[in-house]
Amino acid sequence: MSFDALQEKIRAKKNPTVAGLDPKPEQIPPHILKASYETYGETLQGAAEAVWTFNQGLIDALCDVVPAVKPQAAYYERLGWRGLEVMERTIAYAREKDLFVIADIKRGDIGSTAQAYADAWLGETRVGEASHPVFNADCVTLNGYMGSDTIEPFVEACKAGDKCLFLLVKTSNPGSGELQNMVAGDRLVYKVMGDMTAKLGKGTEGRYGFHLAGAVVGATYPSDMRELRRRLEHTFFLVPGYGAQGGTAEDVQYAFNKYGHGAIVNASRSIMCAWQKTGRDGTDYQEAARAAAVAMRDDIRKYVTIV
Amino acid sequence: MSFDALQEKIRAKKNPTVAGLDPKPEQIPPHILKASYETYGETLQGAAEAVWTFNQGLIDALCDVVPAVKPQAAYYERLGWRGLEVMERTIAYAREKDLFVIADIKRGDIGSTAQAYADAWLGETRVGEASHPVFNADCVTLNGYMGSDTIEPFVEACKAGDKCLFLLVKTSNPGSGELQNMVAGDRLVYKVMGDMTAKLGKGTEGRYGFHLAGAVVGATYPSDMRELRRRLEHTFFLVPGYGAQGGTAEDVQYAFNKYGHGAIVNASRSIMCAWQKTGRDGTDYQEAARAAAVAMRDDIRKYVTIV
Repeated sequence: MSFDALQEKIRAKKNPTVAGLDPKPEQIPPHILKASYETYGETLQGAAEAVWTFNQGLIDALCDVVPAVKPQAAYYERLGWRGLEVMERTIAYAREKDLFVIADIKRGDIGSTAQAYADAWLGETRVGEASHPVFNADCVTLNGYMGSDTIEPFVEACKAGDKCLFLLVKTSNPGSGELQNMVAGDRLVYKVMGDMTAKLGKGTEGRYGFHLAGAVVGATYPSDMRELRRRLEHTFFLVPGYGAQGGTAEDVQYAFNKYGHGAIVNASRSIMCAWQKTGRDGTDYQEAARAAAVAMRDDIRKYVTIV
Repeated sequence: MSFDALQEKIRAKKNPTVAGLDPKPEQIPPHILKASYETYGETLQGAAEAVWTFNQGLIDALCDVVPAVKPQAAYYERLGWRGLEVMERTIAYAREKDLFVIADIKRGDIGSTAQAYADAWLGETRVGEASHPVFNADCVTLNGYMGSDTIEPFVEACKAGDKCLFLLVKTSNPGSGELQNMVAGDRLVYKVMGDMTAKLGKGTEGRYGFHLAGAVVGATYPSDMRELRRRLEHTFFLVPGYGAQGGTAEDVQYAFNKYGHGAIVNASRSIMCAWQKTGRDGTDYQEAARAAAVAMRDDIRKYVTIV
């Protein structure tokens, strides 16, 4: 699905947020973990199957509140191939529930290797006479340090499959300025990366005005975000850093254009682990996640009106 | 294994090269592919099992010639979880054969996510009371665009497991200069990234003088490589771009120090696909790969003497 489709979902649910699905075993409610360990052993498989049960429950609880989910590959890779299998299942299940799926993979590599990643995450892999979808997300996050030629295979895969991507531009972590804020003449590195999204996406603007190459812009640097929003009017923003990392609703408002379009704000732990704060045993994790997602939506809507 | 262990292996085999294991189905000899498709179907599984057979054969043929192998994650992800399972098997098999294994993953992410990747590729994943190695490589490639705080969890994993890493510094692709060659005052972006390796690795130098944080430095920009070698005397280099991409043995000599230490040169297709140039049916792929690896070793040794 394209950013047009994402913007439609955001408008329909009046909610410009995405729920991260990044579970570590210790963040899964004890009853789910226990049942999985009883069936599969206290193993990587046991942990992976617990993640699967948890993810399904979260998706069921959230699918009429949030427009999108964002599984983070690292937490699945941490459980080996069994974790990656669960990531495949999770993406397919979320798409069945009509959610937009951002695979947070932050990949980036040269020519034919970039093509292999694009096949894996957005396109299809040819085997003999047939082509097979693999992880089959709607959208991926990418790292463009190696240059725009390393992103182009993903751009082509997006064009072929009506999908989209986010390039890391200005990230939310404390050390993001080390490289990203270097000043070359009158150009900042992260602005050059931002301009790369405009160059890569040019000509693919949809009916909301956004092209297929979005940007990751952290909520923790609101003035940089404000400037990037002005500079890149056709670039859709993925905004991490709200909540646990310190970004507020007031901060993230600058990611949106005057129509309240063009951005989606991520929260992972605050939704996924909401059950840890209810003082109960975790059997209420679905209600807790849903309540946290609704609270986040309402918090952001205090500052952002979506036309 | 650390860069000390890698340097020992390079000295023992008098060969500073690493064989990439990046097979696409169409690069696998037809008899292997046919047998696998007959057993598992013309499916992602069929392709993955063919990769496994091919990789074992390559490792058997190369393990007394090359000190290291470098599986590239993209080609395994392209086959889904079944591909990743084969990547796990491949890493384990290569380590059994006493090869140094570089997992070419180019990951990079914030705090706890970087930790999850470090668990997956270098360390262990805790499940309940026990910890489990997962992909368990000796070394990984990483992308530091997000800042050195995003690399630190990998540094800690290296210290804990006596392992090492390569940070992308100056890559071999045509567009690498777009970001990497930006000049900020008197600092080039890729030199700042190079200096990051020195900062991250400081204090971990082994008996050959190299710390745990290496650098990827492409053979296609030999003058940049020469300068980086002078600037970063304690940084081990991984050198892509030899052969197919145009880098020559004459070019790569500048990656080594005066003892012929501190670098390893990669070749993937020229070794893996050597069978496609013998005019036979692919049943000679092991001899062909071995001959290509020996030729590459001898080519580089014309310019590099390893003390």
